[in-house]
Amino acid sequence: MNELLNSSIKIWNKLNEDERAYLIDNTIEINYKKNDIINNNSCVGLIIINKGTIRTYIASESGKEITLYKLIDNDICLFSASCAINNINFDVTLECTEDTNGLLLPIDKYKTFINKSNTFKDYMNDIISLRFSDTMWVLEQFVFHSLDKRLANYLLECDSDIINITHEEIANDLGSSREVISRMLKYFENENIVKLERNSITLVDYNKLMDISDK
Amino acid sequence: MNELLNSSIKIWNKLNEDERAYLIDNTIEINYKKNDIINNNSCVGLIIINKGTIRTYIASESGKEITLYKLIDNDICLFSASCAINNINFDVTLECTEDTNGLLLPIDKYKTFINKSNTFKDYMNDIISLRFSDTMWVLEQFVFHSLDKRLANYLLECDSDIINITHEEIANDLGSSREVISRMLKYFENENIVKLERNSITLVDYNKLMDISDK
Repeated sequence: MNELLNSSIKIWNKLNEDERAYLIDNTIEINYKKNDIINNNSCVGLIIINKGTIRTYIASESGKEITLYKLIDNDICLFSASCAINNINFDVTLECTEDTNGLLLPIDKYKTFINKSNTFKDYMNDIISLRFSDTMWVLEQFVFHSLDKRLANYLLECDSDIINITHEEIANDLGSSREVISRMLKYFENENIVKLERNSITLVDYNKLMDISDK
Repeated sequence: MNELLNSSIKIWNKLNEDERAYLIDNTIEINYKKNDIINNNSCVGLIIINKGTIRTYIASESGKEITLYKLIDNDICLFSASCAINNINFDVTLECTEDTNGLLLPIDKYKTFINKSNTFKDYMNDIISLRFSDTMWVLEQFVFHSLDKRLANYLLECDSDIINITHEEIANDLGSSREVISRMLKYFENENIVKLERNSITLVDYNKLMDISDK
């Protein structure tokens, strides 16, 4: 347990003994099954992932979904404690896309702790800004570039399940940069649409790709 | 000056005398002209608006723009101090859409102050969460709702039967083009929902607009 706290909480070494003890004493083990949903309005508390994946997404009334980001081993899930953050008035859904275990700092303990530890509070605020930046990236890609659509079209037009091409080549063809293409491909991979290997891209879910491409 | 700080900074009464004195001593008067641009990467510091409007938007390389929110009298503009916020790695543009005057807490003084005053730092973090929520709203509008809905929502939110605005301004706010907005407005006019005149839009059939907006 100490080991997980140490590796997940990047500022562990900046916490004093009392603060560390508080976290050790008050976190409890949690286990979620694949497909379990943790809604942010249930506000269970801060989740520290040991092994697993939590997908954070928004959903429209019609059921359309957009993944904002995915949290993996050693990541900290803050939106499960969003009721403790002033001014967060939107709903996201947290879905375990694999069996997920880790630690939970229950919401009442979380609230007590951020009022006790400025170091920890600052760290939480840094995480909020990081999630804000991640979300802005998604907004820009979706709204400005339709890059998800364009990339899906591009991959479909390659007419092969295994495409031997570098991210740089795709970037050149789509008038984008390698960094942006790599990140969007990684996004596709997280959504189980493609599988990435060195210099090749394998199409895993043809139907999802067709949906994105709007064909 | 005191009066502006008092009315803009919602936690003014929670600041102690030293903290108030710091703000009074270190803010300077600023004046921007209509159309002036304050880029967030110039990072001038925290701006407290007395009179005016600052539009915060993101822009694509092709010049397409999306307004995230507009700040008006007594609002606090934080993105002009974004270099002092960890993990904010996206660019927004701040445009004065009217002559704008107010106070500036220059960036070095801002950095000193948030390390001095936890009350003020908490307040800044609350503002970041608020902007995050505003931005999520925009993301949801764009990705989930079609333009007719978005335009109907937009017109309803103007809270007036006669709206003095150009199609270009609406297009910028909705991240669309003037042509597309004009066509959609023309469609609304043909349906007797609005009446179009030079630089003004009159709402004729409120109920139809409500139907479209899905409210």
